[in-house]
Amino acid sequence: MSTFAHPLRVVLVEPRNPLNIGAAARAMSNFGFTEMRLVNPYEVAFREARSAVKSQSILENAQEFPTLAEAVADCSLVVGTTALGPRILEHRMRRLETGGKIIARKLASTSVAILFGSEKFGLSNEDMSYCHWLMRIPSREEHGSMNLGQAVAVCLYEMIRDPKAATLKPEPQESADSEDVDRLTALFDDVLSRSGYVHKVTEGSTELKLRRLVRRLNLNAHDVTVWLGMVRQILWKLKS
Amino acid sequence: MSTFAHPLRVVLVEPRNPLNIGAAARAMSNFGFTEMRLVNPYEVAFREARSAVKSQSILENAQEFPTLAEAVADCSLVVGTTALGPRILEHRMRRLETGGKIIARKLASTSVAILFGSEKFGLSNEDMSYCHWLMRIPSREEHGSMNLGQAVAVCLYEMIRDPKAATLKPEPQESADSEDVDRLTALFDDVLSRSGYVHKVTEGSTELKLRRLVRRLNLNAHDVTVWLGMVRQILWKLKS
Repeated sequence: MSTFAHPLRVVLVEPRNPLNIGAAARAMSNFGFTEMRLVNPYEVAFREARSAVKSQSILENAQEFPTLAEAVADCSLVVGTTALGPRILEHRMRRLETGGKIIARKLASTSVAILFGSEKFGLSNEDMSYCHWLMRIPSREEHGSMNLGQAVAVCLYEMIRDPKAATLKPEPQESADSEDVDRLTALFDDVLSRSGYVHKVTEGSTELKLRRLVRRLNLNAHDVTVWLGMVRQILWKLKS
Repeated sequence: MSTFAHPLRVVLVEPRNPLNIGAAARAMSNFGFTEMRLVNPYEVAFREARSAVKSQSILENAQEFPTLAEAVADCSLVVGTTALGPRILEHRMRRLETGGKIIARKLASTSVAILFGSEKFGLSNEDMSYCHWLMRIPSREEHGSMNLGQAVAVCLYEMIRDPKAATLKPEPQESADSEDVDRLTALFDDVLSRSGYVHKVTEGSTELKLRRLVRRLNLNAHDVTVWLGMVRQILWKLKS
């Protein structure tokens, strides 16, 4: 899924909760990213997360660093994430929709680190001072921060999100032949008439209405056969 | 954040884990959605989730239904989510990028339900038969399904995602490594301190300011080398 030339380093700064570390790793695996880095994690949490079943290989290979500076030393773009609004004035702030695009493009030529702060405090001013810019997940500020695992999932989704897929039409399902649709309409007509639904006087207009009604069902090639079978059966019952 | 005319109903079908119910509620709150519905939840899980601190009001107001049919009875569009690929042939399948757009548009005129299956089994065939179409989160299929709370977060993010925010400016060339930028910051720090610029009292905050200042130069890989040379020279002069 992730087909970038260079790695995206997902850096968790001082994570405290093993469930969150595991959830972050799972989201990485879901979206095809492999390089997790942890800055000064709570050791017990890291150990517990490692012993969980899912996303094993990502956690096995996760690298630990005592400081953020060391964790991002080989990255030429460092982006911090935050749920806060544009009031952190010292830093350039981009919404995830924009920032994600820039990161995805950067990954074609260089490695990028994306930072997630600790569950309780987010990124500190010191952490942010290592960032080239900050990226804001467009959540409601009133509610405060997002859950760490969910924030990672949302950011990584934005990275692999395919804007072209959004303009694509859904895969066309083979439509039913007109012949089959007409056959179904005729059978239905017969069924309705035998059921006493169609009145002699208005017969002509009912036929048109019925044809339009059946067309609007937009049946596909498979479904029309099923419908034909069912209506034939009903007709048989009505005739007998 | 969610400024839709009609509600989006987030329907969890037979959820089992209180942490996941809580995480789903938290993601809803983060992205401004309020209507949670639960179909036949594991009662203990629901009770435990309700007693958790976050997203209280969403869980307080969450409605419980014995069957999916009842949970979606008042919705004119029902969309099931899945991590599986296009092999569920009985159903029309759309990627989240497309499906999310369609749902967001629909919410202008009508209410929509979006279904998330249980953690273990996802949506059953019976559940899916209530759906107008299915929506696929574009995760790697090999890895299996996403965590429930993360799946909810990613889908809701796609709903509130603002495509206009993603309009791009062109990006400049290859950026300098963090390592070089740090080196430059350290040299500058030394120069400033030897020049009497850094005052003892404010030393800590000056260091942070300086680091941010240097980051904001957005030096490219070439320029950073030039700067390192210049500052080294200055330092040499100051030392001699």
